[in-house]
Amino acid sequence: MPVNATDRTAQETPGSVISTEVVRYSVSRKPTRCVDTVAAEEPFEIRVRGRGIAVTMRTPGNDFELAAGFLFSEGVIRKREDVVGMAPCLQSDSPQDTMNVFLAPSVKVDFKRLTRHVFASSSCGLCGKTSIDAVRQNFPAITSQLTVPVKILARITGTMRAAQSTFDRTGGLHAAAVFDGEGRLLVLREDVGRHNAVDKVIGFGLLESKLPFGSHVLLVSGRASFEIMQKALAAGIPIVCSISAPSSLAVELARDSGQTLVGFLRGRRMNVYTSPERILARSRG
Amino acid sequence: MPVNATDRTAQETPGSVISTEVVRYSVSRKPTRCVDTVAAEEPFEIRVRGRGIAVTMRTPGNDFELAAGFLFSEGVIRKREDVVGMAPCLQSDSPQDTMNVFLAPSVKVDFKRLTRHVFASSSCGLCGKTSIDAVRQNFPAITSQLTVPVKILARITGTMRAAQSTFDRTGGLHAAAVFDGEGRLLVLREDVGRHNAVDKVIGFGLLESKLPFGSHVLLVSGRASFEIMQKALAAGIPIVCSISAPSSLAVELARDSGQTLVGFLRGRRMNVYTSPERILARSRG
Repeated sequence: MPVNATDRTAQETPGSVISTEVVRYSVSRKPTRCVDTVAAEEPFEIRVRGRGIAVTMRTPGNDFELAAGFLFSEGVIRKREDVVGMAPCLQSDSPQDTMNVFLAPSVKVDFKRLTRHVFASSSCGLCGKTSIDAVRQNFPAITSQLTVPVKILARITGTMRAAQSTFDRTGGLHAAAVFDGEGRLLVLREDVGRHNAVDKVIGFGLLESKLPFGSHVLLVSGRASFEIMQKALAAGIPIVCSISAPSSLAVELARDSGQTLVGFLRGRRMNVYTSPERILARSRG
Repeated sequence: MPVNATDRTAQETPGSVISTEVVRYSVSRKPTRCVDTVAAEEPFEIRVRGRGIAVTMRTPGNDFELAAGFLFSEGVIRKREDVVGMAPCLQSDSPQDTMNVFLAPSVKVDFKRLTRHVFASSSCGLCGKTSIDAVRQNFPAITSQLTVPVKILARITGTMRAAQSTFDRTGGLHAAAVFDGEGRLLVLREDVGRHNAVDKVIGFGLLESKLPFGSHVLLVSGRASFEIMQKALAAGIPIVCSISAPSSLAVELARDSGQTLVGFLRGRRMNVYTSPERILARSRG
């Protein structure tokens, strides 16, 4: 299986950044023409057993991780051995944007459940499911005893930015990074899509046989949504930090699942919404 | 049809903000408990002719606009008269999160195309579509002769923030706003999802019979992605501004469609990626 998951931090993948002409305007100056770079965005289709199960808009690069992480966080696969191989679909017009994932025969794929998630096909009269059931998986709750000093968390945004700076010249990418309990960066991935960045780090963990991330911290550059928390739960991550705000359903899922949810992690300050016992203050109070 | 689209700016809808307990940590101080608010996020299912065609995670409020705007920007409906009525699905366990949209009999719904967008079901051997075809609609190119002075664009982010400040106490919401060519705010909507905020302003336009927005400017709080540009194109919007970066496919679609794409609109400066002739500099140079 050709897997490019061995690099610890994100590298600039050919095709992940594209040059474009831009005219810079300012209220007080004449417009100037120059060349700028933008983050690449291309559709990506994931195929299982000959059927396309998702199309996501992603930044090319680490596509094996993205496919593996997506299938893992959607509950389609549970372990590395469930994937026999992956290869671009040569029968597609754009093979680089279409990934066939070949699963072990023992893996049962509930196409109906996947469909329900993104495209409910039941007639209204038959509808007995609440909508939240359509999107919620049943991953086990977090039982990790991990604790992390607050001063470690205060450092990880800086670590992420430093690792990003070599990569993100576009200002248009979301980042997801996994750290150990001492704040050491394990893996960083970037993408125009927040969910894709998280799928890529989880896919890295799966393909490198490092899951579950039971003594690790996930940091995301944007907001913490329900789906981000669910993906983190799939990977067994006990502490999820976001630089911006969490949503109500993110807080709810975190509470139900025993996840520690940190929001507005900015420099030395942060808000802890759930399970604060995992965060050690300077003097415990 | 019960439609709550008459307010010009977003109002705090009951249920759009939720209180939650939070522990504030800082490296140098003891943790303190307090109560904070987070943006509500709930799944929302849009049903057409008894079939659920999409589930999106959204902030409750302006749900009629969201459903109408989604169907319009997906190309399912083309005009206000295509919608006969809308009502929560009482047969669902959570009626407030499930919207039945009743369409005129003349409206043809291509369920297959919708499915292909979010859930491709063709077998691999039969696959003759490029992925981009699966997500790209065929809306007409922009021919609007609108021009806007750069100093007007320099003002609209401030206008949007001022209108938001009464609403967003959570820091967790994306915003989309439509302005006329003089920079006057027509409508502002907020949501945990960027696409939803845009769907809501477009749905407002549809339900209020104000489409196309051919002499208007769309401003989005986040990045400009392919899907944002496509939704704007559906509504005939000639100028799209984002506070952050555009993606490569956003630039490409804008170029192909004659849309003016402005990125990094921050205070008095901005980058214009396509069709700069619509932006008038102080002294044209």
